[in-house]
Amino acid sequence: MTAPRSEQKKSVDPKKVGDQKADDFFGLAGKVLAHTARSALAPRPMRGVPRGDTRFVPPERNGSADEAEANDGWGFADTKFVVQPNESVVLTGKRYNISNVELPSLLPWMSKTLAAPLGYANRHEPHYPPPIPPARPAPAGLIEALNALLQPDQLSTDPLVRLRRGHGHTGAEIWAIRYGKLERVPDLVVFPTAHEQVVALVKAAEEHGACLIPFGGGTNVTDALRLAPSEERFVIAVDMRRMNRILWIDPVNLTACIEAGAVGRHIAEELARYKLIMGHEPDSLEFSTLGGWIATNASGMKKNRYGNIEDLVLDMQVVTTQGVLARPQVGPRESIGPNPKSFMFGSEGNFGIVTSAVVKLFPRPEVQRYGSVLFPTLGHGLDFLYDLQRAGAVPASVRVVDNTQFQFGQALKPKSDGSMASRMKSKLEKALVTQFKGFDPKQLAAATLVFEGSEEEVAFQEQAVYRIARAHGGLKAGSKNGERGYQLTFGIAYIRDLTFSHWAIAESFETSVPWSQALSLYERVRERVRREHEARRLPGNPFFTGRITQVYTTGVAIYFYMGFYCKGVEDPVRMYGELEHAAREEILAAGGTLSHHHGVGKIRQGFLGDIYSPGSLQFMRQVKHAVDPANVFGANNHGVRGTVDLGA
Amino acid sequence: MTAPRSEQKKSVDPKKVGDQKADDFFGLAGKVLAHTARSALAPRPMRGVPRGDTRFVPPERNGSADEAEANDGWGFADTKFVVQPNESVVLTGKRYNISNVELPSLLPWMSKTLAAPLGYANRHEPHYPPPIPPARPAPAGLIEALNALLQPDQLSTDPLVRLRRGHGHTGAEIWAIRYGKLERVPDLVVFPTAHEQVVALVKAAEEHGACLIPFGGGTNVTDALRLAPSEERFVIAVDMRRMNRILWIDPVNLTACIEAGAVGRHIAEELARYKLIMGHEPDSLEFSTLGGWIATNASGMKKNRYGNIEDLVLDMQVVTTQGVLARPQVGPRESIGPNPKSFMFGSEGNFGIVTSAVVKLFPRPEVQRYGSVLFPTLGHGLDFLYDLQRAGAVPASVRVVDNTQFQFGQALKPKSDGSMASRMKSKLEKALVTQFKGFDPKQLAAATLVFEGSEEEVAFQEQAVYRIARAHGGLKAGSKNGERGYQLTFGIAYIRDLTFSHWAIAESFETSVPWSQALSLYERVRERVRREHEARRLPGNPFFTGRITQVYTTGVAIYFYMGFYCKGVEDPVRMYGELEHAAREEILAAGGTLSHHHGVGKIRQGFLGDIYSPGSLQFMRQVKHAVDPANVFGANNHGVRGTVDLGA
Repeated sequence: MTAPRSEQKKSVDPKKVGDQKADDFFGLAGKVLAHTARSALAPRPMRGVPRGDTRFVPPERNGSADEAEANDGWGFADTKFVVQPNESVVLTGKRYNISNVELPSLLPWMSKTLAAPLGYANRHEPHYPPPIPPARPAPAGLIEALNALLQPDQLSTDPLVRLRRGHGHTGAEIWAIRYGKLERVPDLVVFPTAHEQVVALVKAAEEHGACLIPFGGGTNVTDALRLAPSEERFVIAVDMRRMNRILWIDPVNLTACIEAGAVGRHIAEELARYKLIMGHEPDSLEFSTLGGWIATNASGMKKNRYGNIEDLVLDMQVVTTQGVLARPQVGPRESIGPNPKSFMFGSEGNFGIVTSAVVKLFPRPEVQRYGSVLFPTLGHGLDFLYDLQRAGAVPASVRVVDNTQFQFGQALKPKSDGSMASRMKSKLEKALVTQFKGFDPKQLAAATLVFEGSEEEVAFQEQAVYRIARAHGGLKAGSKNGERGYQLTFGIAYIRDLTFSHWAIAESFETSVPWSQALSLYERVRERVRREHEARRLPGNPFFTGRITQVYTTGVAIYFYMGFYCKGVEDPVRMYGELEHAAREEILAAGGTLSHHHGVGKIRQGFLGDIYSPGSLQFMRQVKHAVDPANVFGANNHGVRGTVDLGA
Repeated sequence: MTAPRSEQKKSVDPKKVGDQKADDFFGLAGKVLAHTARSALAPRPMRGVPRGDTRFVPPERNGSADEAEANDGWGFADTKFVVQPNESVVLTGKRYNISNVELPSLLPWMSKTLAAPLGYANRHEPHYPPPIPPARPAPAGLIEALNALLQPDQLSTDPLVRLRRGHGHTGAEIWAIRYGKLERVPDLVVFPTAHEQVVALVKAAEEHGACLIPFGGGTNVTDALRLAPSEERFVIAVDMRRMNRILWIDPVNLTACIEAGAVGRHIAEELARYKLIMGHEPDSLEFSTLGGWIATNASGMKKNRYGNIEDLVLDMQVVTTQGVLARPQVGPRESIGPNPKSFMFGSEGNFGIVTSAVVKLFPRPEVQRYGSVLFPTLGHGLDFLYDLQRAGAVPASVRVVDNTQFQFGQALKPKSDGSMASRMKSKLEKALVTQFKGFDPKQLAAATLVFEGSEEEVAFQEQAVYRIARAHGGLKAGSKNGERGYQLTFGIAYIRDLTFSHWAIAESFETSVPWSQALSLYERVRERVRREHEARRLPGNPFFTGRITQVYTTGVAIYFYMGFYCKGVEDPVRMYGELEHAAREEILAAGGTLSHHHGVGKIRQGFLGDIYSPGSLQFMRQVKHAVDPANVFGANNHGVRGTVDLGA
């Protein structure tokens, strides 16, 4: 059962693998894999640790057809919410649990909540593409240098290609490309396919005075990719998505080396062939990249079980102007001085380009089960989370949504089949909750739960969860609601663009906060948004909802959505920015943090002086100047080069 | 049950608290605390989260009498191993489970293992104190500046005080102070009592060209405190141990702000009053400080449950030459750019002085139970750990010792009471293991286990542990052996000095390594040590033993002890250094890391080029130069100023 040390990583014929089920694959890949897959799942027979170098090189991914992404909004090109003449909403395509069915309640509910006439006839058609600023002339010799190291299809000056690399998914950016314009976009986009090309690219940029901005999934919501109009240099966007291979997998030591441009959904698909997972599931999983997760210090929905990105990344290779940060081998945990790797988490493009990383893996859990619980109020839900954390029985994911978000979920229910049985069941459920249990439908909150692990672990957690939920007035609401709630995350992401198309502006922001301040923070921010909305005489009611998305021993993360009807408002983006700025002030005053996982980017760098001492900021500036004296990595985030004026 | 936000942290009368049991104390400290203590322990009644600012200021610790530490060796002054004329060994004092009883088997076992005549008559008396280099003259104006900011009792030029701050607990250092000398020691020791004094001190040192070296517990084993003879400046050791207060405790959000000079055992004692723990238990717990844990990137024996130091420290205040790194508030988890805090883990004095940190706390576990298991071989033990990790049921601490260390533990058993019953029991046990179960007494290995958590968690883990142990040929060996094994850690630390006093030189070192390479690493290092020992014609047999101390999903940490009889050897310290250097080469070649938690210091900086790319080292040097251009923090560790010649 042991593999000799001399036996090096083995390659597997990709053709043979692609069409096999995972179980069959283990027969091909040899004993090491077969062993692991079995031993991972107690109480099957156990055989201990295979010995030696247990890595293998997986075959390259076969790209699936029909993966085109939208340029003018979130997600896949085939998927968007459209309002039908009957005022029902349909999510096009077939990708999500709410795709391709009529959602009759959504628009009426949104109209009521916003106190605004959202509807089929009241459209705000985007004029994408916007005017795109022309590329600046390249410094002499730069293009020749790039042509020497890249193939022609690895460079693009196409205006639409440049436009897409000039923004992420901040609401203001999407509004700008749909209804306004971007002041500047990169002058050139390059698509490296290998680490050495990135090394040469950084050298060329340094020599010719160009500015480099790494681009991953383009899903950030902090204006991190947006160019400062004051940036006068030739700007090259370095699109990393062709560097997307899994370089090796070690199924025994549960690690993999993955190129930084690999997209979350592809990583998950590839690892699934070997019954492995990475366990990192940010809401942007489908589109964001490993490099982007590192650069933004990302967090996933299942972090309770698998950890956040800083827990998952053991090592990384980074191209800086001081040379390549790399290590010949990496261990489970080390004490080896201030590893420069640690400066890359949250670096937001400021220090270099991550080309690959060694990440932790986990065996695919034996059991995955969902659950949901209704609580009389959000406060009850928070209390439940607190005691659950104390009991050491937190499932892979547990989230509690407030009443507005609960209603939102209800409004996303498809047209019922209208049968008596289905209506009866629904009525009965409602009666049970609101009358028999005395729940107030305008107050109740809901928890969605995802359990992962061995049968024993999951059973242990379920028992604790429902016992503690009961102690806080919780009512078990079934696994179907839990699964639906969890999966909705991915479909809901498309709603922001629907609101834009119907004269509402909306976006999300988040924080983390100690337990004892969580509820007052939520209430203060809601009230502050109401006041700010009123003070500006904005139309209708503000939309405001929050959910508790992550729990820690020391507190929670809270994720907010905010929006308002903006027809007739002179500068909706500026107004939204003012409201979010006020909300952020309130968050900080209420004991919250600047960001739990979105990051700083440009939209929050004005607050850095509120969360760091002058010495801390000076330290960061000194480091930036020392390791990138020419500011080759001019993404210009989190204020290390001073604040950036992005205009109104 | 809520505390209004306006209610600020409350102070508690220290006199009233000191003499009360924890339960009584909650009556004094108010509702918030009482609430927490109860709700922590499911399934007692739960009441959710108290609201508001839930911090309180604990009373200052009453220093206990009789805490004097030894200057010439490890630990407390009242505790050391002495050999009696009858060749029995006794650990003086009453502090440990093996204190103050005759240990008749230890010396015979050591003599046999080392193949050397260790004994009462064959002593190697230390000549502590060694010659102490005179202090250099202070730069003009420096002393005046220091006198202006410190009280007279906060400065010392006493040679013994200076000597102790000039070294840690590296074997070579202790050998030097007992049988040789240190080439240089600090010229002055200062004892700040407040953060502001450290700020002023750094300014004064910078202005007058002095070098500052922070000093915590002085327990490092990497020569990190040892001065380079080439350091020509006036060196001030900054002894942090008078900054040892717990500034506040938040029992609801499970955090505390603690000054960096607080010693582990004091932190544990103080937190215990409130039924809280920090969960960080390095082997040096009794003497090392919070600041030292950060500076060395420490790991504790219970890290499986509570995490390593980088997981436990949420924030820290650091005095650097760029100003103070500080934050007005801190959250459970944040994405706020490259927080300079991350550079302090493993900084080993090179970047600044940590003055306080906000750390995570945990409720004192409802249940603490011990356990032990015998395995036929170390390989079986490793296989057990691997499958245990995969099953997600790792207890707070699980360690597997090799056969030599198992025998070592047996040799530390006190004189039996000689009764027939006790002899019968012992014989019976032995027979059971070696005959009935077919264990080879020269091969068997042992696991010690510490379970902590709720009754349910512990029951769940115990069940999994013993099931998986059985599957790997394990034999349950009782909780008494487990508790003894765990507690022995603290007593065993004194043995190094016993060996020195009887002509043996010995020290520990450690690594981390992926699962599949762990056993071959262990075997390669053992064989390499044997070869190197033989090649140098050193007397007797080398002493070599290892234990697996920490488990990760991706591998394990292994802790080694190595030594040899050195009477007649010309330069035992150099010989030991050569052997350890060879062992480290073998570790790296076998897939291990430079250090799991001891750090780099000076003794391992020669290997940095083997574990970091040139770009990584250049990046680190640039950072050091940028944030401490005058090298005020001249501890000179991990090679950021080039390598250091410490002579033979």
